[in-house]
Amino acid sequence: MRTRAAVAVAAGKPLEIMEVNLDGPRKGEVLVEIKATGLCHTDEFTRSGDDPEGIFPAILGHEGAGIVIEIGEGVTSLEVGDHVIPLYTPECRECEYCLNPKTNLCQKIRSTQGAGLLPDGSTRFSMLDGTPIHHYMGCSTFANHTVVPEIALAKVRKDAPFDKICYIGCGVTTGIGAVINTAKVEIGSTGVVFGLGGIGLNVIQGLRLAGADQIVGVDLNEGKVEMATRFGMTDFVNPSKVDGDLVAHLVELTGGGADYTFDATGNVSVMRTALECAHKGWGESIIIGVAPAGAEISTRPFQLVTGRSWRGTAFGGARGRTDVPKIVDWYMDGKIEIDPMITHKLKLEDINHGFDLMHEGKSIRAVVEF
Amino acid sequence: MRTRAAVAVAAGKPLEIMEVNLDGPRKGEVLVEIKATGLCHTDEFTRSGDDPEGIFPAILGHEGAGIVIEIGEGVTSLEVGDHVIPLYTPECRECEYCLNPKTNLCQKIRSTQGAGLLPDGSTRFSMLDGTPIHHYMGCSTFANHTVVPEIALAKVRKDAPFDKICYIGCGVTTGIGAVINTAKVEIGSTGVVFGLGGIGLNVIQGLRLAGADQIVGVDLNEGKVEMATRFGMTDFVNPSKVDGDLVAHLVELTGGGADYTFDATGNVSVMRTALECAHKGWGESIIIGVAPAGAEISTRPFQLVTGRSWRGTAFGGARGRTDVPKIVDWYMDGKIEIDPMITHKLKLEDINHGFDLMHEGKSIRAVVEF
Ligand SMILES: [Zn+2]
Ligand SMILES: [Zn+2]
Ligand SMILES: [Zn+2]
Ligand SMILES: [Zn+2]
Repeated sequence: MRTRAAVAVAAGKPLEIMEVNLDGPRKGEVLVEIKATGLCHTDEFTRSGDDPEGIFPAILGHEGAGIVIEIGEGVTSLEVGDHVIPLYTPECRECEYCLNPKTNLCQKIRSTQGAGLLPDGSTRFSMLDGTPIHHYMGCSTFANHTVVPEIALAKVRKDAPFDKICYIGCGVTTGIGAVINTAKVEIGSTGVVFGLGGIGLNVIQGLRLAGADQIVGVDLNEGKVEMATRFGMTDFVNPSKVDGDLVAHLVELTGGGADYTFDATGNVSVMRTALECAHKGWGESIIIGVAPAGAEISTRPFQLVTGRSWRGTAFGGARGRTDVPKIVDWYMDGKIEIDPMITHKLKLEDINHGFDLMHEGKSIRAVVEF
Repeated sequence: MRTRAAVAVAAGKPLEIMEVNLDGPRKGEVLVEIKATGLCHTDEFTRSGDDPEGIFPAILGHEGAGIVIEIGEGVTSLEVGDHVIPLYTPECRECEYCLNPKTNLCQKIRSTQGAGLLPDGSTRFSMLDGTPIHHYMGCSTFANHTVVPEIALAKVRKDAPFDKICYIGCGVTTGIGAVINTAKVEIGSTGVVFGLGGIGLNVIQGLRLAGADQIVGVDLNEGKVEMATRFGMTDFVNPSKVDGDLVAHLVELTGGGADYTFDATGNVSVMRTALECAHKGWGESIIIGVAPAGAEISTRPFQLVTGRSWRGTAFGGARGRTDVPKIVDWYMDGKIEIDPMITHKLKLEDINHGFDLMHEGKSIRAVVEF
């Protein structure tokens, strides 16, 4: 079949909207009609050429929602008409990682996914001249139709709006999951969140959901205050307005340091601040942001020996097929909010404008609707 | 009263054996006759002048065992004749830290202890000319008698030999506790231990006690193999004999990385190796060693985002008054071994020779008996 997609033809170039060929689903694969997709910083990291592992040409996008159109041989957990969210972290439920309750990093299809291929080592997308187009993070949601492995699709309820729940495919789950799955924040805790963008806001609402008593947001942009407050922030700190040491200021504000701190900036210097303002004895600092290639974190080991833990999270520690449908339920039940974070709706033709909005700091999430 | 002590008169000088004045115990304090004390690297770190927070003159030593001779006003948990082990990490059971099950870092007397004083801000030791002599880590076990706060004394059974259980005051508890209290190693785990000295050997026997399946020891000194094997090491790696990357070698040896890794070297570059050979998804690396002043650890944040945790431990995460008596029982019941690690016995007069043995790598533990 043919479908319409935004293709990343080369590093640093705008996406090109074009018709592409899409082969049908093979064994264990599913053809999905994408109804909506968010634009995430990770897409832009690859599009821009900053990602040293970026592969071109490719169809980017990893934050989508849609409907099953056709199932391949052997697919048993999904049927035509099911509503689904593609998962860049799959859940095979049989690999060493899926069987270990301490991790969500299913490795079943990691090597092919990292190479921009489906598990059999080939692509389903190609240019009209036959040139293969790579998949991206196993999702490729910047296309009206895509083919995804069955183990990388979460089946969700049919009454949930695609243009909102697509965001659960990355940002919402990453932020809320970092709090609930990775940190396992207890009621009454204190938390500090660095970076009040699309991930940070979801960390904040995750902390509220977990019953945190104090939720401190840290950002250089005062324009973030109103939205973050709406999502549960109790205290705001603008580092540019702090006299003296930021760590000391945050330790004082939180009464000795925070029980949990989260970096949603990707800046390694901020990651250090986040660790060091965690409470002596028991504070945990969780790295969510993706740092530039080659960047390193550092601190004095004394910070760890005196009881702080330094950890990280990917996809919020969520097991997608199990956890994503629950988060959709939380949204539909009003336990979490998504609507105010979807600040812009675009048509596929205007997708490059979405990246402009991201750079200008004007959007929290821009969503393309098909 | 007067007692005999090895006094650190100035940074970098040998200890001087002398008679000193010792005032009796004040409120909440206990006079202890020290029967035996180990020599630990931390004592040497301070004696040598490498410790930027070292205070002189002082009576060093923090790994002792002895008998209660006199109790001060208000002391209720101990009586004359009790056998005790002094604790450089006290356990008041009422501060914010003692009441938080996630930490053992009782803060009740931290500031005075760090300043070489007892909790009322004074010293009990003085030179015969009246010059005050500082306490050290709240213990000062390089003296035949010492005064220690009640909350910094673990009461232990009377049939346990002082010349062995003194080691539980630091090295044994630090190593075994890192495994049991901090890492909470599960049966069947794999562990890698960097540095097979007095702490590392105890990490190894802690791993054996916890039921680890594979216990890898890493050290540049082949002379450590026999003793480490006796304590449970299943595999030995000499980094100087590994072709290529040490992390890759250890990841392969452990079938994908170790569930738990421990640094007992204090070398920040080794700490990085320890983190990076922990298993993707769930590996935890625990820093035990004390790094030189100003040294920093570093790594790519990707190591944490892909599921490794970086943590530290002090006094093996043990709550001394509660846990140390249990470890003494384990020793008396044969669950753990101490005797082979006490490689040298000295008289107080020969204590400086004990530091020579330490530098020459000839001793695991030298113990001074009074
Ligand atoms: Zn994303
Ligand atoms: Zn799996
Ligand atoms: Zn010690
Ligand atoms: Zn306490």
